[in-house]
Amino acid sequence: MQIAFSGLGRMGLGLSKRLKEKSHDVFGFDRNMHCTKEASSFGIKCFSSYKEMFEAFYNQKRILWIMVPSKAVDDVINEAIPFLNKEDIVIDGGNSYYKDSIRRYNFLKGRGIKFLDIGTSGGVWGYSRGFSMMVGGDREDFDFISPILKDLAFDGVGYGYVGGAGMGHFVKMVHNAIEYGMMESIAEGIDLIRTSKPEVDLKESVRIWKEGSVIASWLIELTHKALNDFGFLENIKPYVEDTGEGRWSIQEAIENAVSMPAITESLFMRFRSREKESFRDRLLAALRYEFGQHEIKKNE
Amino acid sequence: MQIAFSGLGRMGLGLSKRLKEKSHDVFGFDRNMHCTKEASSFGIKCFSSYKEMFEAFYNQKRILWIMVPSKAVDDVINEAIPFLNKEDIVIDGGNSYYKDSIRRYNFLKGRGIKFLDIGTSGGVWGYSRGFSMMVGGDREDFDFISPILKDLAFDGVGYGYVGGAGMGHFVKMVHNAIEYGMMESIAEGIDLIRTSKPEVDLKESVRIWKEGSVIASWLIELTHKALNDFGFLENIKPYVEDTGEGRWSIQEAIENAVSMPAITESLFMRFRSREKESFRDRLLAALRYEFGQHEIKKNE
Repeated sequence: MQIAFSGLGRMGLGLSKRLKEKSHDVFGFDRNMHCTKEASSFGIKCFSSYKEMFEAFYNQKRILWIMVPSKAVDDVINEAIPFLNKEDIVIDGGNSYYKDSIRRYNFLKGRGIKFLDIGTSGGVWGYSRGFSMMVGGDREDFDFISPILKDLAFDGVGYGYVGGAGMGHFVKMVHNAIEYGMMESIAEGIDLIRTSKPEVDLKESVRIWKEGSVIASWLIELTHKALNDFGFLENIKPYVEDTGEGRWSIQEAIENAVSMPAITESLFMRFRSREKESFRDRLLAALRYEFGQHEIKKNE
Repeated sequence: MQIAFSGLGRMGLGLSKRLKEKSHDVFGFDRNMHCTKEASSFGIKCFSSYKEMFEAFYNQKRILWIMVPSKAVDDVINEAIPFLNKEDIVIDGGNSYYKDSIRRYNFLKGRGIKFLDIGTSGGVWGYSRGFSMMVGGDREDFDFISPILKDLAFDGVGYGYVGGAGMGHFVKMVHNAIEYGMMESIAEGIDLIRTSKPEVDLKESVRIWKEGSVIASWLIELTHKALNDFGFLENIKPYVEDTGEGRWSIQEAIENAVSMPAITESLFMRFRSREKESFRDRLLAALRYEFGQHEIKKNE
């Protein structure tokens, strides 16, 4: 099939390379013609205008896969819209907030243009391993692009239709929230070993966990790889970012009165990792001084 | 090799059957000769006295693998001890508290008897898939029993030496604590989908997660199986047990001032699942009435 990508960053490049290797005809849009050397070397045709790119399609129904940071999605849609025909399919494969995806679905529907939200997991490994894709929108559009999804998918089966507009991103949002909790749990356990029993062979322990234990998982495999790559991680700053899915999940839990303490703690521990000058901790130290004259450590 | 098992419950039976199939000579001890029909049908020789069983060994160095609930381990050791020779190897493959394992190692060492603590993961699936085994004790004893471990292990590699006495059970304890956190995270995320977006195809979502997503794991595979086996779980009581490893891990974290909020919440949520008549919740409802005359629901 023919497909165009807007966004050739780490994820977009992985997706487009994988499709090119599976003999699809892949276009890349890049207004500034920075279409990476790597993309070109893989035979991805780059265009600097939507007009030219969409004219190059021989498919009657054109597919535009957007793979950009969530805050840039509306801009891409607004730029592409003058050149889109009715029944063309716009895909947002990034980590957009599902309520934005519902809004975009309705906005495009008003113009006769189809929209699919595809939660895409697999990280930078997706290119070689294949991706795991949760698709929301109209089932007929999912069916139409299935040949592409099958070729992108892990083992040819890592994709599926999960529900109407926004539900692909909703399920991906929850996936990422679970990921936060699993990662935090692994990190807490390993920190306990490292602190309480430094004499334990930590790397060997994690290697054994990879092999048939109840916690065997891709994240445990990556943990083993990280210990192999970085030893005891002395050179890695203990600072953990987040990209929104955890926050949105907890907001959703609050709106629906669902109790989610482990995932919430996992997000809060990420915030905690970024604190250099914690007002809370200063206040706690000050209060201990006030009621019990407990020693205060002075800033040097 | 020759090996004797004390304890032919779910785990002990799985281990002994797997070894028998790999052509080891497996004995089962059962004082009351209840040695299960299944064990006998697999060619496991049962004995009703340690004396007879240990006399039947042709190996000079005898191996006794104990696979009983942790509170029964001392009884088994005390019963077996009169019939053990110096250099015989006693293995505790259950979920004993690691500090008990250190005590048992030292107790047996005083009598010239060797002790290995083996944290054994893999659940009831271990028989077919192979086990994941974390071994603590003296390395020479680990080396001696390696042919047995290799045949028990997942893919022939799911075993290893992690450290001195008690460290096998320590690493298994932390493994189980991580398991609590991973399970709770999965359950929280899925509960959010079910409550907030019941229209989402939950089973299809979990199936996609199995295939190449970042949270792909054995626990996600089992979650998919559970939804297949039990539908929306209406017939399963929402009551979650624990067997000690979570509590021990949190005690260890407190002793070593390690922060472990996600795992701690996971244990507390299990306690929460068992509450029928929560005094805390009654107190909270009563306090809301006291300061704001907020309505109290009366017990019927």
